[in-house]
Amino acid sequence: MIETGFPTGGPTLRELGERDVIKRIRAQAPSAVNGDDAAVLAPPTPNSRVVAATDMLVQGRHFTSDTSTPYFVGRKAALQNFADIEAMGARPIAALLAVSAHPDMPVVVMEEIARGVGDMASDYACELVGGDVTSGDELVLSVTAIGALGGNRPPLTLAGARPGHRVIAHGRIGYSAAGLALLQAGVAVPPALEPLVAAHQVPQLTPGRGVVARAAGACSMTDNSDGLIRDISQIAEVSGVGIDLASNALTPDALLREAGELLHIDPWEWVLGGGEDHTLVGTIEGSAPVGFRSIGTVSRKQGVRIDGAEPATARGWESF
Amino acid sequence: MIETGFPTGGPTLRELGERDVIKRIRAQAPSAVNGDDAAVLAPPTPNSRVVAATDMLVQGRHFTSDTSTPYFVGRKAALQNFADIEAMGARPIAALLAVSAHPDMPVVVMEEIARGVGDMASDYACELVGGDVTSGDELVLSVTAIGALGGNRPPLTLAGARPGHRVIAHGRIGYSAAGLALLQAGVAVPPALEPLVAAHQVPQLTPGRGVVARAAGACSMTDNSDGLIRDISQIAEVSGVGIDLASNALTPDALLREAGELLHIDPWEWVLGGGEDHTLVGTIEGSAPVGFRSIGTVSRKQGVRIDGAEPATARGWESF
Repeated sequence: MIETGFPTGGPTLRELGERDVIKRIRAQAPSAVNGDDAAVLAPPTPNSRVVAATDMLVQGRHFTSDTSTPYFVGRKAALQNFADIEAMGARPIAALLAVSAHPDMPVVVMEEIARGVGDMASDYACELVGGDVTSGDELVLSVTAIGALGGNRPPLTLAGARPGHRVIAHGRIGYSAAGLALLQAGVAVPPALEPLVAAHQVPQLTPGRGVVARAAGACSMTDNSDGLIRDISQIAEVSGVGIDLASNALTPDALLREAGELLHIDPWEWVLGGGEDHTLVGTIEGSAPVGFRSIGTVSRKQGVRIDGAEPATARGWESF
Repeated sequence: MIETGFPTGGPTLRELGERDVIKRIRAQAPSAVNGDDAAVLAPPTPNSRVVAATDMLVQGRHFTSDTSTPYFVGRKAALQNFADIEAMGARPIAALLAVSAHPDMPVVVMEEIARGVGDMASDYACELVGGDVTSGDELVLSVTAIGALGGNRPPLTLAGARPGHRVIAHGRIGYSAAGLALLQAGVAVPPALEPLVAAHQVPQLTPGRGVVARAAGACSMTDNSDGLIRDISQIAEVSGVGIDLASNALTPDALLREAGELLHIDPWEWVLGGGEDHTLVGTIEGSAPVGFRSIGTVSRKQGVRIDGAEPATARGWESF
């Protein structure tokens, strides 16, 4: 069963007023740390460094009521920020949520967004610790994730890839774009393809994989947010190296192929250009850490190639 | 000279594309920490706790081109988050900026906002370390401030006020609301009253006053963001105490009185209900720390009073 749609009934933000709206948000994602001018967080390990990332989502641009629900939007907004924290090899310790919404929006939409953020935070053993609500014409969410980086090893930056490294990935690639294409095509989605839709609505990562990769000796990492080729190219450029991907490690699986046939789209477009899977992609000297698979190698020769050739599809996400 | 207005010429976000827009933002507020999936911050003192706050600002709601400039909007957005960090007794160590804007917006508006955030961060000895840009119909900013709380003393919470405490304040009260009223009245603002307008466009605090107050033994603190009575009432409610303010410590000064006469508005409305000054207001057992003045006392009798009577004006800011 595919769930989409935003609730349209019940009391509005205007009817309840700021104070009660905030109370309801906090009821959906309770935290002892929330409720003051700012949240105070104890470091999980002594002298850990602080890691911070933020993402903004606009209704109609990053999500619509035709393709998602407020709860999924909240979960996804949190996840994509946690993926940024994990891509540094750090672990999320808190999330902040700021929302601008029309005063006539039902408060249940706000509650569901908060529940989504809170539940995803809970999956990562952290909490929604603060935020802001304001009125505007558009529904705009901004989630900030705070993480902690313990120990003395450097974080997993875009600059850490070296020739000879193995390229590793954790998480699906191409599922989110395929799921979105199915939702937008206006076709009845066969039940077998629902995992693609689910992956678009809320991408799945196993919490802690970035921390594991860093502990296992990974040196560079990012997440597949704007499209695999685009994100991998970032590592290649910033590190001053080349990356050779192996097509047989990226070959669209049965679900992607089936969706491609249904929609008459080449599933490789989703794999190479799709983005929004938030797959962790990085490089390491030795073998792939638990939960990661090998998808290529790092070389001296600048650029990103698949089986030695320039990728045909590399568009990716563009904000403006 | 009062400066207002948003630039309307030059290349747009759409014309430049996301990559170049981000480059230009980073050029306005350079930081070695920016540019990866997330920013990694070293703790300024061993085992300091992390403090985080976020605020969202919407054009037409929190600022307009008639009353401000993009540079001032950036400065103010940063300042109001830093005030939240200071109100915990902590010191800001970084800011993140997420902006949603129409693709046809001139990029110089984005650059000026970023320069404002970066300059204010610089005033607080910290940096703009990361962010996000996206397209939308409205101009929406979200700034997150990260702070550090050193040592073992508790943070300055809303819950820390105790009967017998002195109520203390750092910063102007009422100036921001008076300045906004002058800008909105459509009158020629006499040069002598320009400090009120300046205080609305960019409230002024001396960086580090929250840290000083905590070191001097302050126990509770907030900032005057929604209106003095409303914010003080928060401390009183959460602490389960009453607060008695002394009118002679709050009496509108010559500038506020002059603006009040010009606009036929009682300046006490600005002092008690205005907000947006981000004045640090707190309580302490002993005498007022350097930079703070005494404005009242904490008692057992619940409620907020001025010279023993209920305040006539206590509206304050309401989001919806």
